[in-house]
Amino acid sequence: MADIRCIGICTGGGDAPGLNAVIRAAVKCAFLKYKWKVIGIPDGFDGLIWPEKSRELTLKNVSGILPRGGTILGTTNRGNPFKYRTVDNGKEVIRDISADVIANATKLGIDAVIVIGGDGSQKIALELLEKGMKLVGVPKTIDNDLSATETTFGFDTAVHTATDAIDKIHTTAESHHRVMVVEVMGRDAGWIALHAGVAGGAHLILIPEIPFSVDRICRHIVEREAYGKRFTIAVVAEGIQLPRELKQLSRGGSVGNLVGDAIALAAHKEVRVSVLGHIQRGGSPSPFDRILATRFGVAAVDLIAQGGFGKMVCLRNARIEAVDIADAIGQLKIVDPHADLVCTARSLGICFGD
Amino acid sequence: MADIRCIGICTGGGDAPGLNAVIRAAVKCAFLKYKWKVIGIPDGFDGLIWPEKSRELTLKNVSGILPRGGTILGTTNRGNPFKYRTVDNGKEVIRDISADVIANATKLGIDAVIVIGGDGSQKIALELLEKGMKLVGVPKTIDNDLSATETTFGFDTAVHTATDAIDKIHTTAESHHRVMVVEVMGRDAGWIALHAGVAGGAHLILIPEIPFSVDRICRHIVEREAYGKRFTIAVVAEGIQLPRELKQLSRGGSVGNLVGDAIALAAHKEVRVSVLGHIQRGGSPSPFDRILATRFGVAAVDLIAQGGFGKMVCLRNARIEAVDIADAIGQLKIVDPHADLVCTARSLGICFGD
Amino acid sequence: MADIRCIGICTGGGDAPGLNAVIRAAVKCAFLKYKWKVIGIPDGFDGLIWPEKSRELTLKNVSGILPRGGTILGTTNRGNPFKYRTVDNGKEVIRDISADVIANATKLGIDAVIVIGGDGSQKIALELLEKGMKLVGVPKTIDNDLSATETTFGFDTAVHTATDAIDKIHTTAESHHRVMVVEVMGRDAGWIALHAGVAGGAHLILIPEIPFSVDRICRHIVEREAYGKRFTIAVVAEGIQLPRELKQLSRGGSVGNLVGDAIALAAHKEVRVSVLGHIQRGGSPSPFDRILATRFGVAAVDLIAQGGFGKMVCLRNARIEAVDIADAIGQLKIVDPHADLVCTARSLGICFGD
Amino acid sequence: MADIRCIGICTGGGDAPGLNAVIRAAVKCAFLKYKWKVIGIPDGFDGLIWPEKSRELTLKNVSGILPRGGTILGTTNRGNPFKYRTVDNGKEVIRDISADVIANATKLGIDAVIVIGGDGSQKIALELLEKGMKLVGVPKTIDNDLSATETTFGFDTAVHTATDAIDKIHTTAESHHRVMVVEVMGRDAGWIALHAGVAGGAHLILIPEIPFSVDRICRHIVEREAYGKRFTIAVVAEGIQLPRELKQLSRGGSVGNLVGDAIALAAHKEVRVSVLGHIQRGGSPSPFDRILATRFGVAAVDLIAQGGFGKMVCLRNARIEAVDIADAIGQLKIVDPHADLVCTARSLGICFGD
Repeated sequence: MADIRCIGICTGGGDAPGLNAVIRAAVKCAFLKYKWKVIGIPDGFDGLIWPEKSRELTLKNVSGILPRGGTILGTTNRGNPFKYRTVDNGKEVIRDISADVIANATKLGIDAVIVIGGDGSQKIALELLEKGMKLVGVPKTIDNDLSATETTFGFDTAVHTATDAIDKIHTTAESHHRVMVVEVMGRDAGWIALHAGVAGGAHLILIPEIPFSVDRICRHIVEREAYGKRFTIAVVAEGIQLPRELKQLSRGGSVGNLVGDAIALAAHKEVRVSVLGHIQRGGSPSPFDRILATRFGVAAVDLIAQGGFGKMVCLRNARIEAVDIADAIGQLKIVDPHADLVCTARSLGICFGD
Repeated sequence: MADIRCIGICTGGGDAPGLNAVIRAAVKCAFLKYKWKVIGIPDGFDGLIWPEKSRELTLKNVSGILPRGGTILGTTNRGNPFKYRTVDNGKEVIRDISADVIANATKLGIDAVIVIGGDGSQKIALELLEKGMKLVGVPKTIDNDLSATETTFGFDTAVHTATDAIDKIHTTAESHHRVMVVEVMGRDAGWIALHAGVAGGAHLILIPEIPFSVDRICRHIVEREAYGKRFTIAVVAEGIQLPRELKQLSRGGSVGNLVGDAIALAAHKEVRVSVLGHIQRGGSPSPFDRILATRFGVAAVDLIAQGGFGKMVCLRNARIEAVDIADAIGQLKIVDPHADLVCTARSLGICFGD
Repeated sequence: MADIRCIGICTGGGDAPGLNAVIRAAVKCAFLKYKWKVIGIPDGFDGLIWPEKSRELTLKNVSGILPRGGTILGTTNRGNPFKYRTVDNGKEVIRDISADVIANATKLGIDAVIVIGGDGSQKIALELLEKGMKLVGVPKTIDNDLSATETTFGFDTAVHTATDAIDKIHTTAESHHRVMVVEVMGRDAGWIALHAGVAGGAHLILIPEIPFSVDRICRHIVEREAYGKRFTIAVVAEGIQLPRELKQLSRGGSVGNLVGDAIALAAHKEVRVSVLGHIQRGGSPSPFDRILATRFGVAAVDLIAQGGFGKMVCLRNARIEAVDIADAIGQLKIVDPHADLVCTARSLGICFGD
Repeated sequence: MADIRCIGICTGGGDAPGLNAVIRAAVKCAFLKYKWKVIGIPDGFDGLIWPEKSRELTLKNVSGILPRGGTILGTTNRGNPFKYRTVDNGKEVIRDISADVIANATKLGIDAVIVIGGDGSQKIALELLEKGMKLVGVPKTIDNDLSATETTFGFDTAVHTATDAIDKIHTTAESHHRVMVVEVMGRDAGWIALHAGVAGGAHLILIPEIPFSVDRICRHIVEREAYGKRFTIAVVAEGIQLPRELKQLSRGGSVGNLVGDAIALAAHKEVRVSVLGHIQRGGSPSPFDRILATRFGVAAVDLIAQGGFGKMVCLRNARIEAVDIADAIGQLKIVDPHADLVCTARSLGICFGD
């Protein structure tokens, strides 16, 4: 059992519903089970660059935050203490201020840190670990593309938001005999598009993992019309690989608009596009995400108590386990084009544009 | 009391949540109260061009449609029988086939028609009326910009959808210290942006009725930072008047993206944009919209029974009344820049960019 | 213009979605428009009995509360300072401590108070006004039964919650050929039952204003079966007047269960009952309620600025106005059995049990 | 590969969100992948007693049903063909009409049947299988208490509905300093109460698997007050084992009311009770449930194609597999009092009344 009296907690990278649920669970468990003090580190690792911004998190501070999106600690996509951008004599310099960060954590009395974040944050965590900081990780990615864990909190909520949008689009598409394109998140992996597409009853799903052609898409739209279906709903992941014919059309807009323009041109259909954007990262987490985030928060605290530094909690076969952060990072979990759910989708007549 | 045995019903123009609720109420009331037969005319007036596509609507057909978006009758933005586009000897010709439409209605045994639609559909209705067709109107506009009625069904639901999106954006904006732009519907009138902006706690609202400058927007963002608020949420109606400096930036994308680009450039902030698009026209209608649509449906049937042809049902001082279609069309209800709700918004510190 | 530098604000009586929106709007408007200080009085008037519990409300305190149910000030159904229950020498005594309350308000530097509350709270407000306290009222009732205002915040949200429950019940009722009873709020007035019943497509609506018989209910269920409808959904207001035959059955349970038992007995149908209870008072306020509450909050502050003490803000013909509290209290707005919406409901075949 | 040209499909037992998604997936897959005809058997096995009530299910019939609760086939809790209740010469007789059922299936041209249902329906399926009917099973239980499958569709949606209710209750409980009791489903197993309780941030969770005492509950309420928390939210499964002291109080009402009365009596607190009832079985299925149901539907059709009669599809380690129906039935999956999620809950200070 590690000798711990005070832990820090920080959230890094993009937003994901459930961050507050992790924080709440960690604070409650640390206080009620271990009698530890918890310090909230604001804005990712930035809070250790300016330690005066950190503050104690009490039970009162985390009361009521379970159902809320966002993170009460704030977050940032920048703030890498090993490559910290600062301005010196009027020009930008990049410095390694990791030693300050570690010293500041000590100054704050922090014995160990819970780092909630994605691949980028966990890489920084690993470097800090190597320099002597005691820490454990909690995985976070809205895209569900971390290979170390079966699923991450936030993904289920994002799928909900996207499915809800597709549901709303459905009636209009059907009433108006239109092609409707919904662009969803998924830079490298098409999990949100695949899940929301199947759940929302989409007819076309375009994901980064499966190359597509505009021709095939249009053929599917025409085939549907032969069945008397004069409307088509396409779900498009933001990270799809553009075929050559689409790259030429591109004026730098969103891929959703691009796919929409291409269909309008090639299939002579009226097309409408919705770009959901960051609404997928917000909102009250779903029960599934709240429970997963809560389990992660408690498990991270237990991991510190057991001295499991350098490890990250994860979900495997529906159980909470721990893996070495070193083994967890840098490995993307993408959609296998022959995966179960893709095959299921094809059995229903869903077209992937290939 | 008019001598009626059979009525027709059609839906024209863009989608709006509540169309099915009107249809259901009209069918139920026609059948239960007056023992009339009801014929569903599909795809706007198109269904009278090809009368064989029309079919009787029974209680069974309308069972379960109350909570559903869209319209079981289908709709279209085209299909003006006075300017009907057709192809003759390989080239497009525009013909007046209104006489056929009226004859077809008679052939189907339709004594009077309920026309559910916006300004465009009601104009056509008026012309058909003048040529002898008995009909009454039900107003429909998602934008709530018809001056003849205090409010129309679909608007409350659209405001819900937009507010829900802003709610989701809120936590991310706050956690990430970002500027988030949400583009909502409103081609000529800013009602959705104004209502959803106030309901969602937006900081900036841009509407067609109030000219704005990028400068003023950026000043507001900076002022908020002085209060310690490092994030800003802007709600932008699709129909805003672009100031000159924005017109130059435009590459034909959505105005939301344009405003976002301008803020990013001028205020050096990270900006994210969501373009809600047609999800605002879909989804299950809110209770308010279901009730209003139901009242309109019943009132339209009662209006036919009373022989009130050429009139349109409307809401005035929370009561259902009827106005002449001739007086109702062509008059847009836009947001008065000095209206109550705009002043209320300003009292809360909301900036309109002016 | 009244000479005001500091105002107090308190919330009394039962919960209603939108209370926080009123508080937020009042604080923002008071600070930004008038540069006033605002003091939050906790737990109704109790906060003036123990003035040390009161605290300043800053912009920061009200940040983020717009979409939240409940009230950050807390509330209570007790705490009448004119009939204050206390324990003296081991036995309960009722005392008038209103002078203390007024003195405490002065001690806190409060120049005027915004009292957000229902009939009970406004009666107390009136008595305090007569004793010299400067105050204005904001009406609050989930039941929408205050005659002085067309509508109150919270009602639309409650109707949403109830309609959503009826929507969920619908599919099960239909699949299982059952009678489903949903008990909703409404002690004296049946507004929630009427609105949610029409919006949810109920077949039976029982409200306090319309006496009903079990016989008539069962006949309606049987008539529906004749049309091939083997299920029925009944919405029952908690305050219905029990006919004699039901009073005998009563064992003190909820009226919803009682009506359910009676139907099961008399119509030989399987019946299931849901008692929604206080979930109707909670949850994020609907956009409509947020906007109305925001307008009330701003209007109350403006009313103080204009010296309109003793008045209550209200909604009339969709405009915010002010009435004398004295004229507003004690007058219940109940459902007229011949009202528009009741007639509309009857046109659709909805039975009121009469 | 089995020689199949036509399959039947039926839904038995209580309602669960996702039934329509299974039906839709099975019809689409049968038609598109195997070119089979599908016959919809209405109202559980009843549809084979009166075969004239069965009808073909085409792609058109299942269009749009994915997001809808309920089952388009209807269902029933009765209708066991081995113990069929009928009236003969004025008195009820129970007969075995299974031979008729099998003969009718053959008469309808059905080669194999998909039985979607819980333990009861699968038991009947097993008996029909032994008499020669070719069939496969799809598990269904809102309570998630079938040991053969990790999870069943409908459960996630029910947890959503219950969590949403707890969320709404939260703000009122907190504002009013009250004890709020929410009774949820769970006759033998406390899964819904456990999941919704953790997801909703409840303070007390009572489930059938963990005996509780009123004393312990009241102590927890008092302990919370010592922390300054003057409100408590208790989630109670309908199937809890009543301790002796509660049995005496019972007047036959719901257990939620009973627990509420006991707390009011023993802890001198104001208590409010919501009994969610069948709203937990309804509503649009969550994306998770839609996907699971879709996968089950496709897998059941594939199972028939492979000749896997007598088997039931199930979820194991997040993969769709098949088990013998004979092994699957009669084994309840209840909450282990030492399970992970119970321990997680205890780490957060949640009390189980033990």
